[in-house]
Amino acid sequence: MIRVGILGATGYTALETIKILLRHPEVTITAVTSRQDAGQPIAATHRSLVGRLDLDFEESDVPTVAAKTDVILSCLPHGASAEFACAYLAAGKRVIDFSADYRLNDLDTFRAWYGDHHPDGERVGKVVYGLPELFRDSIRQADLVANPGCFPTTAILALAPFVKAGLVDPQSVIVDSKTGVSGGGRTPKLNFHYPECNESISAYGVGTHRHMPEIDHILKRYTGTEVSAIFTPHLAPMDRGILSTIYATPVEPMTQDAALDVLLRAYADEPFVQVVDHLPATKDVAHTNYCHLTARIVKGRLVLVSCIDNLIKGASGAAVQNLNCMFGLPETLALRN
Amino acid sequence: MIRVGILGATGYTALETIKILLRHPEVTITAVTSRQDAGQPIAATHRSLVGRLDLDFEESDVPTVAAKTDVILSCLPHGASAEFACAYLAAGKRVIDFSADYRLNDLDTFRAWYGDHHPDGERVGKVVYGLPELFRDSIRQADLVANPGCFPTTAILALAPFVKAGLVDPQSVIVDSKTGVSGGGRTPKLNFHYPECNESISAYGVGTHRHMPEIDHILKRYTGTEVSAIFTPHLAPMDRGILSTIYATPVEPMTQDAALDVLLRAYADEPFVQVVDHLPATKDVAHTNYCHLTARIVKGRLVLVSCIDNLIKGASGAAVQNLNCMFGLPETLALRN
Amino acid sequence: MIRVGILGATGYTALETIKILLRHPEVTITAVTSRQDAGQPIAATHRSLVGRLDLDFEESDVPTVAAKTDVILSCLPHGASAEFACAYLAAGKRVIDFSADYRLNDLDTFRAWYGDHHPDGERVGKVVYGLPELFRDSIRQADLVANPGCFPTTAILALAPFVKAGLVDPQSVIVDSKTGVSGGGRTPKLNFHYPECNESISAYGVGTHRHMPEIDHILKRYTGTEVSAIFTPHLAPMDRGILSTIYATPVEPMTQDAALDVLLRAYADEPFVQVVDHLPATKDVAHTNYCHLTARIVKGRLVLVSCIDNLIKGASGAAVQNLNCMFGLPETLALRN
Amino acid sequence: MIRVGILGATGYTALETIKILLRHPEVTITAVTSRQDAGQPIAATHRSLVGRLDLDFEESDVPTVAAKTDVILSCLPHGASAEFACAYLAAGKRVIDFSADYRLNDLDTFRAWYGDHHPDGERVGKVVYGLPELFRDSIRQADLVANPGCFPTTAILALAPFVKAGLVDPQSVIVDSKTGVSGGGRTPKLNFHYPECNESISAYGVGTHRHMPEIDHILKRYTGTEVSAIFTPHLAPMDRGILSTIYATPVEPMTQDAALDVLLRAYADEPFVQVVDHLPATKDVAHTNYCHLTARIVKGRLVLVSCIDNLIKGASGAAVQNLNCMFGLPETLALRN
Repeated sequence: MIRVGILGATGYTALETIKILLRHPEVTITAVTSRQDAGQPIAATHRSLVGRLDLDFEESDVPTVAAKTDVILSCLPHGASAEFACAYLAAGKRVIDFSADYRLNDLDTFRAWYGDHHPDGERVGKVVYGLPELFRDSIRQADLVANPGCFPTTAILALAPFVKAGLVDPQSVIVDSKTGVSGGGRTPKLNFHYPECNESISAYGVGTHRHMPEIDHILKRYTGTEVSAIFTPHLAPMDRGILSTIYATPVEPMTQDAALDVLLRAYADEPFVQVVDHLPATKDVAHTNYCHLTARIVKGRLVLVSCIDNLIKGASGAAVQNLNCMFGLPETLALRN
Repeated sequence: MIRVGILGATGYTALETIKILLRHPEVTITAVTSRQDAGQPIAATHRSLVGRLDLDFEESDVPTVAAKTDVILSCLPHGASAEFACAYLAAGKRVIDFSADYRLNDLDTFRAWYGDHHPDGERVGKVVYGLPELFRDSIRQADLVANPGCFPTTAILALAPFVKAGLVDPQSVIVDSKTGVSGGGRTPKLNFHYPECNESISAYGVGTHRHMPEIDHILKRYTGTEVSAIFTPHLAPMDRGILSTIYATPVEPMTQDAALDVLLRAYADEPFVQVVDHLPATKDVAHTNYCHLTARIVKGRLVLVSCIDNLIKGASGAAVQNLNCMFGLPETLALRN
Repeated sequence: MIRVGILGATGYTALETIKILLRHPEVTITAVTSRQDAGQPIAATHRSLVGRLDLDFEESDVPTVAAKTDVILSCLPHGASAEFACAYLAAGKRVIDFSADYRLNDLDTFRAWYGDHHPDGERVGKVVYGLPELFRDSIRQADLVANPGCFPTTAILALAPFVKAGLVDPQSVIVDSKTGVSGGGRTPKLNFHYPECNESISAYGVGTHRHMPEIDHILKRYTGTEVSAIFTPHLAPMDRGILSTIYATPVEPMTQDAALDVLLRAYADEPFVQVVDHLPATKDVAHTNYCHLTARIVKGRLVLVSCIDNLIKGASGAAVQNLNCMFGLPETLALRN
Repeated sequence: MIRVGILGATGYTALETIKILLRHPEVTITAVTSRQDAGQPIAATHRSLVGRLDLDFEESDVPTVAAKTDVILSCLPHGASAEFACAYLAAGKRVIDFSADYRLNDLDTFRAWYGDHHPDGERVGKVVYGLPELFRDSIRQADLVANPGCFPTTAILALAPFVKAGLVDPQSVIVDSKTGVSGGGRTPKLNFHYPECNESISAYGVGTHRHMPEIDHILKRYTGTEVSAIFTPHLAPMDRGILSTIYATPVEPMTQDAALDVLLRAYADEPFVQVVDHLPATKDVAHTNYCHLTARIVKGRLVLVSCIDNLIKGASGAAVQNLNCMFGLPETLALRN
């Protein structure tokens, strides 16, 4: 059994990771850490775990946790995550990092968007991006994997085949995304207060959201092409799910069938990317690790629709998919539910 | 024009009160107070007021506010509310108090449920309860009105005619209420955090909710009968609305028609209480000052269903209805929307 | 008192219109029609009207209804609406038509998007579009007004000043809209079945929605410029509200302040269009006739955010605003709530 | 591998059953039937199954389906379900029936609540009720199991230990239940139309809901005591979950600790019934086969709170738990997610 430790386990992505791992036949959860709730049973915080996981939160003491784990899944915020990631790497553990600390292509961009401090800046740009559909071979060898951001997952899966083949103008890309509220985390704030965000939709972080450079960087890394996407996230009144509607200008006239064919060929063998003819809804993929994708041509413009469960394929499911890759297990283990 | 000042105007009940008063032909809002946001435009806090109310929050300085108002609506929390209420009363202003400070029949019960401190304990038990359907004449004369609690409004309107006529065992009453989340206020807390309470229903405050003694006291005050109700509130995933399902044992066999008739006769002339044959839904009364009521007999037991908008008939609409009473205006002014 | 008749009064837009008119001091509702519910009290269908409107549905018999009304508001579907509109016009009544029958600039486009049949094709292209912010003077004189579509209202109000001033490339426009479910009407269908659309967001009608030509036509009519917008509506899990995020390429570099200034100058004197600095949410305008608008510049591209209540400013409130214009009343009457 | 056929597989309970069985290591789904969609791929109806289950719907032709299955799960409506159940039993197949056809204790009661027709009336009253917590041994031997109703599951699990021990007055029981909308099925109807039931709560079927006699009968069958419960279901604006708040009068004074202890002792060894100290929420058990239970004493009365996922422990999960029992598999297989 692979022994897993989860850092920062009070949040929603940690909870979802735990639920997936509880049905994983090759994994056992041996440590869950939380600074604020150390010493408390995890089921006191996550009541859905009553009777299902009998562990207490502990501090993230590296020697203690390292001694009882084979792999660390870090759900800590950026900055803190890299700090612990490099400590556990030094202790010989493999690490999957949910934060943005190791996702971007260079430290300068990280600093411009996340602030000057990075406790492990040297590794930035050298860590594999944990999207097996694009970087599977590297993930298999990796000791450290940067788990993708939720919005970039939808955008990159949709755009990568078109950018790679040079079919669209890489400066014309617009990503208009809609997310459920769980993406905002478990800490109460006014904009996630039920009577504020229920029955309402709003744009946020227009031009300033940190996932904007991530989309550009990973598409560049995978395709070699400079991409400059406009990214607009919206908060929708639902727990989970992301739907991204993506606009790009074809460099030459493209039919709808041709557009769908680009996707179909790219993902024919991928277990978790399903190219569909109909317009997908986030509910079709809720509580699963699937991404549903389709394409349309409107007045000559390419319109892509891409949706995932932000907590699963956008975070926890992706992490378990990466874990399966890293440990030579069938990639779909515990994820075909 | 009646000049109105609203204390504690950052919350949802204040906002609803303002929206109602903005369409009131005899009223002008001249002061809105907030300790935390003093000096800020109210529309910066309540964005739905952009272009509709051009006032800044101010401190609740009694001489200043009193000088420009005829009546004070206090949306302050209990304790603080009585403190300001008696100051404005002393300054010659009429006051409608949204808090529980003056609702109960005696100070001892107040202390048992709300804590020892009451800044104006002498008035407790002598203030009219602002339910015009039961206490209209007293409200008309009053300088101080205790605006009812939201849950008690549903329970008291449904039960009062039956208890008054001695038709049900007053010890058999069970009030099972379901409320929207706005009843919990505007301050972010984990249990009102969207991903926690969305798609979920739960009971809370079972046996400990402060509206339980209020139901007993006001029914006693109106009917002379000691009532001991069991009250169980539930949090439902919606913005607004309360539906109470109320169970009581008839002292003699009662038909459904007879039960409906008790309600119909009691409220025949009431503009805001509508007795209906069908089972009402909170949506039928959302954003209105109406209460919809019906009765059923199941296996000999009386089952009453009563619903209101918790922010309107359960708070702000009731306050404006009281204001209309107090100032000799048509009771439905600004409330027939 | 202006006597109003409402055709097709079983739907949501009719209900909202009634609620607004119930607080209108110069209007009385004298007829409500419904083929399917003729003879039934309207409150049996719309339970929120219990005790508020004591009228029975009747058939839309033109002489009968014309005899007791001064103005007709038609909430009938396209085709049927024009049929009755021209009959009531012939009977000397003024008409506000909620359908798309008279909105477009020419009959050919109507036929291409709505089908060959139009019972009053000659008037198409000659009827004023009921957006007072753009066409107020014509509305004042009109006997027949084409009430705008909900999505076009958000898009046209945001784009008109920029297109009029030649500031953006009219071929670059993308309108990505998100609407609540009430926009789909009151007839039960699988895609509006609660467990299907709750907790889910999806795109629909991509490239095929009938509001796409309406956006192009009205912008052309107002500005003289040919516009070709891509329009993508999305269904969001909420009752009401539309938020449109609109992308356009400036013909010359534009700052964010300049963009906001374009909107501020265009709508400085408009009571119902509020230009805001913050990113607005549909909740800010829910249950009101307001449109909140803002502008951003992202990577040189103009991003506009525009939101309304689809049932009010997107339908019923707009109709009452038009009615106020047509009858020389203050335009905000009954709408400042 | 156990070969499973699912009858009436277009609905929500069938879909949930399929999702559970897809992760069941000992089961393979070999047939899914639907009269209306026969010949179509199941993923065309249930889009969440794209790429996960490659089967076409077929007619429920007994010889054909029997030849390729070991056990039949019938999600057909009552009446139709018994008709097919007895045919598959005659063909030597084991059957789990989701309908109410075999749940009650006698045919007369069935006829009074469900109508005169029962295609297999002789078996009524002789079929084991599929609640393993109460009837595990009989389920293990059974060829036919009556899968429980969703509301009765919450009520019976909570009440059974108290009634069995004679601790409460069996005539005093009130079950006030709140359910999500998926309980109403997948066929569009006005009361499940999103804009009707969203943001609203209502009681329905007061005194007339068919689960009322089921609660009485099964408690009688398990405890030998005649129970007469008042049952009031409510529709809450959420996809899934049932929370029942249950009131009963203790025959002798009971402390809260004693009440909790009754539950703890009854369910100490049950994998899926968790007795908790806190007040549970439906979200704690959503998407799981767990029931969370607690007890309170309020003014001497016993108040029980019981919650489940109506589609899982209230239908599909219960069925798989029964299947595991019937086939001698670990009862929690595929259900510990």
